[in-house]
Amino acid sequence: MIAIQDLYPEDYSWCYGCGRLNTHGHQFKTYWQNEHTETIYTPKEAEMAVPGFVYGGLIASLIDCHGTGSAALALHRKNGHEPGDGAEPPRFVTANLHVDFMKPTPHGIPLRAVGTIEEVHPKKWIVHTEVFANELLCAKGTVTAAVMPASFLQKQ
Amino acid sequence: MIAIQDLYPEDYSWCYGCGRLNTHGHQFKTYWQNEHTETIYTPKEAEMAVPGFVYGGLIASLIDCHGTGSAALALHRKNGHEPGDGAEPPRFVTANLHVDFMKPTPHGIPLRAVGTIEEVHPKKWIVHTEVFANELLCAKGTVTAAVMPASFLQKQ
Repeated sequence: MIAIQDLYPEDYSWCYGCGRLNTHGHQFKTYWQNEHTETIYTPKEAEMAVPGFVYGGLIASLIDCHGTGSAALALHRKNGHEPGDGAEPPRFVTANLHVDFMKPTPHGIPLRAVGTIEEVHPKKWIVHTEVFANELLCAKGTVTAAVMPASFLQKQ
Repeated sequence: MIAIQDLYPEDYSWCYGCGRLNTHGHQFKTYWQNEHTETIYTPKEAEMAVPGFVYGGLIASLIDCHGTGSAALALHRKNGHEPGDGAEPPRFVTANLHVDFMKPTPHGIPLRAVGTIEEVHPKKWIVHTEVFANELLCAKGTVTAAVMPASFLQKQ
């Protein structure tokens, strides 16, 4: 399976959350899982809130990059493409992020973010995400993702 | 000046975002600034979204820990205490987090989170935060923070 993040052009592959070229970052990878999307990540030892529980900012980061990756998968599919067919996928930015922390998230096991995608405009998608540790639903989140403006890289 | 995070008991000082004992983490520090609260942080080189712009998950993390730290400062003050008077402050957890990303956030300069605190219940506080890079308002966020249950550390 090919993650959507493995298809981003090099200039867009430095994200601390999901850039394959950022060796200091999380390198989140997002895949289709039937009609849903999935990102699995095992937090590093230091990524804790208190000993034994995962840091909330890491969960927010997971939901964020999972959201933009899921939106990219969805628009890519709408455009007739699947990862691996050679086409370059669209790239999204986060307009807003909401996270409800439902349970302390146990550390030391993989977290699984599962996304459900909703198109609200051709360039604006909402991704609803649930984060599980084993079968425990620990957090729910929503990302509003917008197609990255062509000017984004040039603004620096 | 003494940051609220410098007063948390040792067991609660391992947070990846704001724990003074977590040497891998961000070590955010939150202070009173008149009636507002302030956390200043300069992102590390790797904490980027694309080259030249700060990673959104880092901004969400900053707003999150700034929120719980601000709530702790506020309840501590309501209880008659200021950092440095020897009293142990309350510790909060995040119930939910919302972030609106308003502008691409330039990398390489300090970010300043400014909090405005609202009490909605003796054990539940809302912190409204604006994040600036120099004078540019880059993100706005809201944290609902709840007093940490006494059982939290025992749950592990």
